[in-house]
Amino acid sequence: MADNLHPMTAISEFMRQVRDDVDASLDLLVPTAGVRPKRLHEAIRWSLFAGGKRIRPAIVYAVGGAFGAERKSLGPSAAAIEMIHTFSLIHDDLPAMDDDDLRRGRETCHVKYGEATAILAGDALQTLAFQVLAEDEGLTPEIRIQLIADIARASGTPKGMVAGQQLDLAFEGQDPVRVPIKVLELIHSRKTGALISASAKAGAIIGGALADELVAIERYASQIGLLFQVTDDLLDVTQATETLGKTAGKDIVADKATYPRHFGVDETRKMAVAIRDEACEALAAIDRETSLLVGLAHLIVDRTN
Amino acid sequence: MADNLHPMTAISEFMRQVRDDVDASLDLLVPTAGVRPKRLHEAIRWSLFAGGKRIRPAIVYAVGGAFGAERKSLGPSAAAIEMIHTFSLIHDDLPAMDDDDLRRGRETCHVKYGEATAILAGDALQTLAFQVLAEDEGLTPEIRIQLIADIARASGTPKGMVAGQQLDLAFEGQDPVRVPIKVLELIHSRKTGALISASAKAGAIIGGALADELVAIERYASQIGLLFQVTDDLLDVTQATETLGKTAGKDIVADKATYPRHFGVDETRKMAVAIRDEACEALAAIDRETSLLVGLAHLIVDRTN
Repeated sequence: MADNLHPMTAISEFMRQVRDDVDASLDLLVPTAGVRPKRLHEAIRWSLFAGGKRIRPAIVYAVGGAFGAERKSLGPSAAAIEMIHTFSLIHDDLPAMDDDDLRRGRETCHVKYGEATAILAGDALQTLAFQVLAEDEGLTPEIRIQLIADIARASGTPKGMVAGQQLDLAFEGQDPVRVPIKVLELIHSRKTGALISASAKAGAIIGGALADELVAIERYASQIGLLFQVTDDLLDVTQATETLGKTAGKDIVADKATYPRHFGVDETRKMAVAIRDEACEALAAIDRETSLLVGLAHLIVDRTN
Repeated sequence: MADNLHPMTAISEFMRQVRDDVDASLDLLVPTAGVRPKRLHEAIRWSLFAGGKRIRPAIVYAVGGAFGAERKSLGPSAAAIEMIHTFSLIHDDLPAMDDDDLRRGRETCHVKYGEATAILAGDALQTLAFQVLAEDEGLTPEIRIQLIADIARASGTPKGMVAGQQLDLAFEGQDPVRVPIKVLELIHSRKTGALISASAKAGAIIGGALADELVAIERYASQIGLLFQVTDDLLDVTQATETLGKTAGKDIVADKATYPRHFGVDETRKMAVAIRDEACEALAAIDRETSLLVGLAHLIVDRTN
């Protein structure tokens, strides 16, 4: 991070660079829309290049960078994790799941391409993610299998993203104030936190982090995952549909358990700041240049202001 | 294979042993139905233990055995491939896809557990397959990443199973006799053939096959994949729903392009025998004990009689 830049300018510049790098990697790794079956590849690209913030790749790059990993050694893993994230968005939006018509300001995959193609686009993105990780010749086979195992555990069941989505659906329709906060945290740690932690761990492993550094990074990452969910819930109740790019208030209509419903908006804001500070404190145990990681934590909270 | 057994007795005994081994492996690898989220794990087990024939694991074991691989070194890969296959069945049966209510004589996953859970059960099975392959400590990291890359290519797009399903849907509703046979073969080679080939290749790689042996095994496997599809099409038109365990004639109702619709039942039977013989001829190039592989090819045709 250049010393002469204001921290928030540096983090914006970093995020812009991440978006450019990830978009370029994804474009190379995913079959073009001209390759058959065309509709499938169009659908994959529709969702993959929908203006996502690339938060998970940013975490891979920021953590990897802190541990001295070469930028190019982080690209395939960052892209693979974004593929897994996008697969989960496509399937979560399906009529049988959250039934969302709009994401990031445009039609969701199944609205645009039909349900069958959307299901297959999600399936193919998951497959491709593991293929990209396995074929990443910039990393040793040992590191590749460790990343695949970690990312698979974070994506699947019983402790990953798919399990979190199943739990989330199970509690939908229940009076959200009656869903115990411990259950809410469990759902979020699975649904969102696990893959964010895996992103941080991937960067650390590629950068050759030592065991105690890995512990600190995992503490940081678990707070970041929680922070992400809490601020997402805040955005859902405080922003208009147009700004948010998805149907605002959707979680409330669906009677989903969210932090603001439990604690109110003001208290949730205070929680977000406290979680951010805990994330940053975890970094104190690491003798590396972590200002970008601090900046990321601040960025996540600031987007709710 | 014991010399004193009739070949078809030996192959039946081999298939029974494969089913026992694969069922035991899957039972260990998949969270029990008592682990949360329970409904998800129940759904996964419902489809995984539905009396499948375990043809793909049998190919892994038979090819691996021919190349002298230890039986226990083949178990996780065989189980992982069966997980991928089961994930594809669950998603193919969904209302937005083939809309099947019945498979192997009982309710399909979405009929029993609802669409959302069925989508997630398929997703989780795919994830778990790659996790199992990555965590398979009986194999070197080099072999593990090769298997993951091969199986991912065979499962995804543009040359794998998901691409095949997309192509299949694209041609549904067209006059099947007008779908060129080359297109029909392309669909099947993607939808069914690719994962069957990957099963054979996995066994050969684990067994340490040489490059020219791998070429012969891939020739065998591609014929077996085709044979499997042709005989499946035959079963669909010649058997009653009760015997078949799925809604018979379904492909015809859906106006799917099938071999019997193209060539008639008698001609398709002749094709099956010719394909079987080609598969067996490919094995002549390998100086190994391949009688089980020959037996498997015969078994696939014989089930249509």
